[in-house]
Amino acid sequence: MAKLKRSERIAALVKLLADRPGHLWSLSQFAERFATAKSTISDDLALIKAVLDQEGLGTIRTYPGVAGGVSYEPRMTEAAAWQLAEELAAQLRDPQRILPGGFLYMTDLLFTPFWVERLGALFATRFRAEEPDLVATVETKGIPLALMTARALGRPLVLLRRDSRVTEGPSVSITYVSGSSQRIANMSVPRRAVPQGARVLLVDDFMKGGGTARGMMDLMREVGARVVGLGVVIATAEPARKLVEDYFAVAVLEGVDTVRRQVRIRPSLGR
Amino acid sequence: MAKLKRSERIAALVKLLADRPGHLWSLSQFAERFATAKSTISDDLALIKAVLDQEGLGTIRTYPGVAGGVSYEPRMTEAAAWQLAEELAAQLRDPQRILPGGFLYMTDLLFTPFWVERLGALFATRFRAEEPDLVATVETKGIPLALMTARALGRPLVLLRRDSRVTEGPSVSITYVSGSSQRIANMSVPRRAVPQGARVLLVDDFMKGGGTARGMMDLMREVGARVVGLGVVIATAEPARKLVEDYFAVAVLEGVDTVRRQVRIRPSLGR
Repeated sequence: MAKLKRSERIAALVKLLADRPGHLWSLSQFAERFATAKSTISDDLALIKAVLDQEGLGTIRTYPGVAGGVSYEPRMTEAAAWQLAEELAAQLRDPQRILPGGFLYMTDLLFTPFWVERLGALFATRFRAEEPDLVATVETKGIPLALMTARALGRPLVLLRRDSRVTEGPSVSITYVSGSSQRIANMSVPRRAVPQGARVLLVDDFMKGGGTARGMMDLMREVGARVVGLGVVIATAEPARKLVEDYFAVAVLEGVDTVRRQVRIRPSLGR
Repeated sequence: MAKLKRSERIAALVKLLADRPGHLWSLSQFAERFATAKSTISDDLALIKAVLDQEGLGTIRTYPGVAGGVSYEPRMTEAAAWQLAEELAAQLRDPQRILPGGFLYMTDLLFTPFWVERLGALFATRFRAEEPDLVATVETKGIPLALMTARALGRPLVLLRRDSRVTEGPSVSITYVSGSSQRIANMSVPRRAVPQGARVLLVDDFMKGGGTARGMMDLMREVGARVVGLGVVIATAEPARKLVEDYFAVAVLEGVDTVRRQVRIRPSLGR
């Protein structure tokens, strides 16, 4: 294979880095692959970092030392985050999304890669400093979102189930009260999926009373994990007092008027 | 913002392309963003395509004409596909994965972004020629895999549910017989999620008797869609005669010996 020119090597490097967010690459690994000096790779990475930073396309983080290396981190600028939240709110204001009972159809967004990828990058940007070891969600609609958050952080995803499955081995389960409907429900996780002391970022698509989020937290405590953050796409304005206090919502749903066919929703990027 | 040098522009271009597989970008869009001539962008893209092809990192597809442009396509080489299948089989041979009843624990792999991303790229490579409009799976464990397949194809994902939800509006449902357990089960999809005549790629994590796959096909027929492919990660060797005939499996599970603690599994990349 012909040795690559600089711009060619940079193209390949960007592709490798972008394909695996959060993965720690050693400079020697790259130097070997591209048959060049580590100092050359180092220069390439400095250029890549500068461009990504300038263009708002994420960043390259360097970890010094023997076990060090470099890693690509998706990062969303404050401006891009607000733009995404605005775009989301605008989409959800479409009266065609109103379902009987005042529910909003949002499954299409939650299952479109480009939407969940950006939302995942937003959650990753917001919670990276909390150094989560893994991302968890409860089935079902939040799974793509949680996966993309996990991908952006370079961490695995753990799925909490509404019942325990024979194909997942010994599991830990709790019962919780769904905040809005006051139903008692079950939530479980395979014992081997969450290591003792793991730092867990919780992600979900929608939060009303916070009962499910409370359940996720209780289950995490039960398996000896530590919840370091909770991110949801949409939180409702009411009830204002939810079963969890500390959370991050991309947008707040203030109300759905099924008669006038109006959806009141606002970007939030906070509580 | 300073105008970028060639290698800098290439870094940014690769990043933009890689972040959105299957998305059609116009050259003018890039020319405008980087304040340069379309012919320059065209040269950059030729270089990028050559490098990605040579390094087995996917490819750039050019669509001619007024509505044309370029798009990044994840593509897995035959060699990389076999390596992935071998790696997967090796992982699953670990006796610690054996669960009571001869089940295999594979949730961790199915929920690790880097695993499902590569499996998704493999499915996308295998089925791209069938030109799927969307990717569908049935809840729950196949969702990350199906999402990554959809992402690699630049298409949306549609989730088939085991019951119909009030928050998804009018839905179409069928009953089907689970091939292995002979239980009668329900499967549904929101009516608005699948357009008439859509070409659908079905994806699932595991197939034994093929009853669930058959159910997915029946449901797709019911909503007027056309199934153009079925990809599963693991298919069992027995029963040899399944309820679906045409499928693609990454690996074949030949047996789990719970007494000797042995898993017999082989890479397949076919039936």
